[in-house]
Amino acid sequence: MKASQFFISTLKEAPSEASLASHKLMLRAGLIKANAAGLYTWMPMGLRVLRKVENIVREEMGRAGSVELLMPVVQPAELWQESGRWEFYGKELLRLKDRKDADFCMGPTCEEVITDIVRKEISSYKQLPKNFYHIQTKFRDEIRPRFGVMRAREFVMKDAYSFHADFESLQETYRAMYDAYCRIFTRLGLDFRPVAADTGSIGGTGSHEFQVLAESGEDVIAYSDTSDYAANVELAASLPLAGERAAAAQELSKIHTPNVKTIAELAEFLNIPAEKTLKSIVVEGEAEGELVLLLLRGDHEFNDIKAEKLAGVKSPLTMAAPEAVSAQFGANGGSLGPVGFKGKVYADFAAEKGADWVIGANQDDYHYTGFNFGRDAAEPEFVDLRNVVEGDISPDGQGRLKLARGIEVGHVFQLRDKYSKALNASFLDNNGKSQIMEMGCYGIGVTRVVAAAIEQNNDERGIIWTEAMAPFTVVIVPMNYKKSAAVQEAADTLYQTLTAQGVDVLLDDRDERAGVLLNDSELLGIPHRIVIGDRGLKEGNVEYACRRSGEQQTVALAEVAEKVVKLLNV
Amino acid sequence: MKASQFFISTLKEAPSEASLASHKLMLRAGLIKANAAGLYTWMPMGLRVLRKVENIVREEMGRAGSVELLMPVVQPAELWQESGRWEFYGKELLRLKDRKDADFCMGPTCEEVITDIVRKEISSYKQLPKNFYHIQTKFRDEIRPRFGVMRAREFVMKDAYSFHADFESLQETYRAMYDAYCRIFTRLGLDFRPVAADTGSIGGTGSHEFQVLAESGEDVIAYSDTSDYAANVELAASLPLAGERAAAAQELSKIHTPNVKTIAELAEFLNIPAEKTLKSIVVEGEAEGELVLLLLRGDHEFNDIKAEKLAGVKSPLTMAAPEAVSAQFGANGGSLGPVGFKGKVYADFAAEKGADWVIGANQDDYHYTGFNFGRDAAEPEFVDLRNVVEGDISPDGQGRLKLARGIEVGHVFQLRDKYSKALNASFLDNNGKSQIMEMGCYGIGVTRVVAAAIEQNNDERGIIWTEAMAPFTVVIVPMNYKKSAAVQEAADTLYQTLTAQGVDVLLDDRDERAGVLLNDSELLGIPHRIVIGDRGLKEGNVEYACRRSGEQQTVALAEVAEKVVKLLNV
Repeated sequence: MKASQFFISTLKEAPSEASLASHKLMLRAGLIKANAAGLYTWMPMGLRVLRKVENIVREEMGRAGSVELLMPVVQPAELWQESGRWEFYGKELLRLKDRKDADFCMGPTCEEVITDIVRKEISSYKQLPKNFYHIQTKFRDEIRPRFGVMRAREFVMKDAYSFHADFESLQETYRAMYDAYCRIFTRLGLDFRPVAADTGSIGGTGSHEFQVLAESGEDVIAYSDTSDYAANVELAASLPLAGERAAAAQELSKIHTPNVKTIAELAEFLNIPAEKTLKSIVVEGEAEGELVLLLLRGDHEFNDIKAEKLAGVKSPLTMAAPEAVSAQFGANGGSLGPVGFKGKVYADFAAEKGADWVIGANQDDYHYTGFNFGRDAAEPEFVDLRNVVEGDISPDGQGRLKLARGIEVGHVFQLRDKYSKALNASFLDNNGKSQIMEMGCYGIGVTRVVAAAIEQNNDERGIIWTEAMAPFTVVIVPMNYKKSAAVQEAADTLYQTLTAQGVDVLLDDRDERAGVLLNDSELLGIPHRIVIGDRGLKEGNVEYACRRSGEQQTVALAEVAEKVVKLLNV
Repeated sequence: MKASQFFISTLKEAPSEASLASHKLMLRAGLIKANAAGLYTWMPMGLRVLRKVENIVREEMGRAGSVELLMPVVQPAELWQESGRWEFYGKELLRLKDRKDADFCMGPTCEEVITDIVRKEISSYKQLPKNFYHIQTKFRDEIRPRFGVMRAREFVMKDAYSFHADFESLQETYRAMYDAYCRIFTRLGLDFRPVAADTGSIGGTGSHEFQVLAESGEDVIAYSDTSDYAANVELAASLPLAGERAAAAQELSKIHTPNVKTIAELAEFLNIPAEKTLKSIVVEGEAEGELVLLLLRGDHEFNDIKAEKLAGVKSPLTMAAPEAVSAQFGANGGSLGPVGFKGKVYADFAAEKGADWVIGANQDDYHYTGFNFGRDAAEPEFVDLRNVVEGDISPDGQGRLKLARGIEVGHVFQLRDKYSKALNASFLDNNGKSQIMEMGCYGIGVTRVVAAAIEQNNDERGIIWTEAMAPFTVVIVPMNYKKSAAVQEAADTLYQTLTAQGVDVLLDDRDERAGVLLNDSELLGIPHRIVIGDRGLKEGNVEYACRRSGEQQTVALAEVAEKVVKLLNV
């Protein structure tokens, strides 16, 4: 492609609304253009990237046995009412009425539509399993669309849905999709991790996220330094500690701790590390009026997803009202503890083997030192209540955990019968008996992948594309293309030579200053650059540069095509 | 592709809601599946066809210098308010509100969005011309969605928009798009005609429709049997007749015509052909209270688009109220004529050279015979008021007109400054002066093309795809694939041989009866079929069949791949 026949529109500065590196760079490089909050046009340069991602997704989905179709963007409300999601899906579901006042929505996902198709098309176990996908525009009316296409309202998603006669078949396809996702993100050249996203009801294999590792990621993932274990930090289990509990060395003694409300203040006041303290969290119990006390080490982060699953705890998790707390504990938040509390007490595994804790005394402005479980209060039930931290033993027992931030670009789910039951997607099994189908679903945020790749691959000069995603793999930058016949001829010939070999070449024939052309080639992140100028041509040379390594090299014009083609084939 | 890894779902009977051949066949062949009125899923078999169309469109648009981007489906109301279309576009524009109660619409076209992008991106004549296109889901909330994807609410359109510094540049791109459209529809193997769709303000080149010829088409087009002339019948001009007016042979005489209201009744009553009569149509004039009388031959069809453009006629064209008619004419509809009428009278060119007309006498239940212009009433102004008919002289003077029905699949427009002015899309010309851009737009109904192709290519057994659009170009139909090892081996080997040569082959390995497989291959319309059975294999033979010609041939298994590949290359 010649730049004069294409459209390059770069900016020196990103618009001020952009904070994330990928958002800034996508705007500066002219990959996208905002039409409204969370609505973007993919400009020609960006669309080339998007299409490369789509094609890799398509190839690998096909290879894994998924068949492409295309479901509509606008979906009838009836199906969503049948699944129950019309009521339960919040305002992210953009609802609309047609001219006859009938209800529709812009599809954020397509479980209902595909299940409706399948229940009409499939009636026998002989037709199962089936796996369909499409790559289609989706809409989620985000309350705060931000970070460019990372969290846009309209976006492109690849969503696949599989249907099965039994759970074993679902697991098989789930694994095939998992493997296909690994191939996709590997081919795209991304540094990613599949992480367990939900322990699920069976074997911990109910759901996996695919996280692209990046400092700016909204998710935190925990992974083993030894094994394959990885999970969203919200779900990574922390294990009971091994060994015996330390012996109590101190007496229980109440101390005056005026104006000490937080663990940080307490640790500072007593000049002890936070890990010597226990913090108290009071939540509502399942039974009306009942409170449950949750204890964990002062240096640990409370995990509400884990707490919500505890027996006797009200779901959704609800913090106890201050009045209820002071009525039952005799003190307010900041001075609470288990001594004298009559209700259910859970304590985190990490507190099980310790002794001589500092803890609230259930009297405002007072704490106990030398608190010991069993001696000063009944033994609580020890459970997993906290987020894992770096250095924790990996839940699979192999190695220790590390933490990293990630951007979720894919998600695979074993839905089981959630939708197939609601929509009565049934089939006759080999005994002629009607059964509900097992179902899985598998999504990739295609537009988000582009942003995630940039988060992971950029420097102060711009984007650094992998070859698989680059809008062009080679850019020819001629100096004075319009004025130097020699440069023009060399550039055109090289362009034709590379194009004829199937290389995606951009010949930047714009009438711009050398500095602009060179800066743009770096901002646009094209992997291989060949600069052609009169001075070099006199010696028969051009300048090759690799965007990623920064390596620059003088190469004979006669040899540069061969060199580049060889690099692309590696 | 093996059928077992794909999804074939055919029906013996089309659902009763389908009336059009293409709609029936698309449902029966399982190309589409209805999700709601006017909303369809493109099933795997249909999507393959759609993608082939898209790819040809893409290639030819690129070749013609248009650059692809991707604009959003949901568009902000502000832009539509700026262009004025928010108010003027009717209920076909699906409007919606987001969670913050802001107004949006589902884009039926993208003039506003692209003009907004271009006015921000382009500031100098040096950046012009530019031509952008996208292939995107569109929505029009049709009052009566019908005929399947022919008139669906959600559909896929290719829409392109070009921007120019002057009209000459617009005309150049318009011609390039016109040529690209001809290449696209030719490559798709469609029998089509580009027809003038609007005489426009300059040179009659303002707009062309691309019509696929089909009996079921909603449009009527008129074309010359000699020249390239073709136009929508609504816009094809009828010319003044040559020669002298016939001499009057009869006296004007009033006759009693009780209960005769229509031309058909009048012709029958008097036992004369309708072409001997003149019909009177009374419309409102521009001035309040003024009426205009329009006369045309009784056998001709009134053309309201032409009438609306006449001087002194109110626009939009408004039929006169019965009370006003009887007040000014002294009679009611069915007996009206020019004799004694004081207002403006227009008569159609076809009435200019005739004499001795039968016409209303402006007295209820009476007509005149022997009416002659100039003698019995003032000469009217002769103009073009009617639809052309077969045999009319072509407006370009070459040959005579024929009529045909067509399906509009493409439309190119010279928009001039309609949107660029409203949205102030300006640029600095080479004198540094601000100018409004010239603009063109160019649409192809991608999903409709598929239906139109079927309308034109089907028989009682099903669809007959052209090779360019066929979901698969070759189908291998093995008899007893699951039971005969010889058949299976021959089919698999042939499948691999053809696939390796880049042929789009479907191996129908479904465990179905021979009749089902053969019928499906015809219903699906795959151009080339190879049937493999044990009986033929004993002689080393297979059966080749061409879907379009119906030709069947016994061919040696060893030679059939070569034969088919040769056919595909023709």
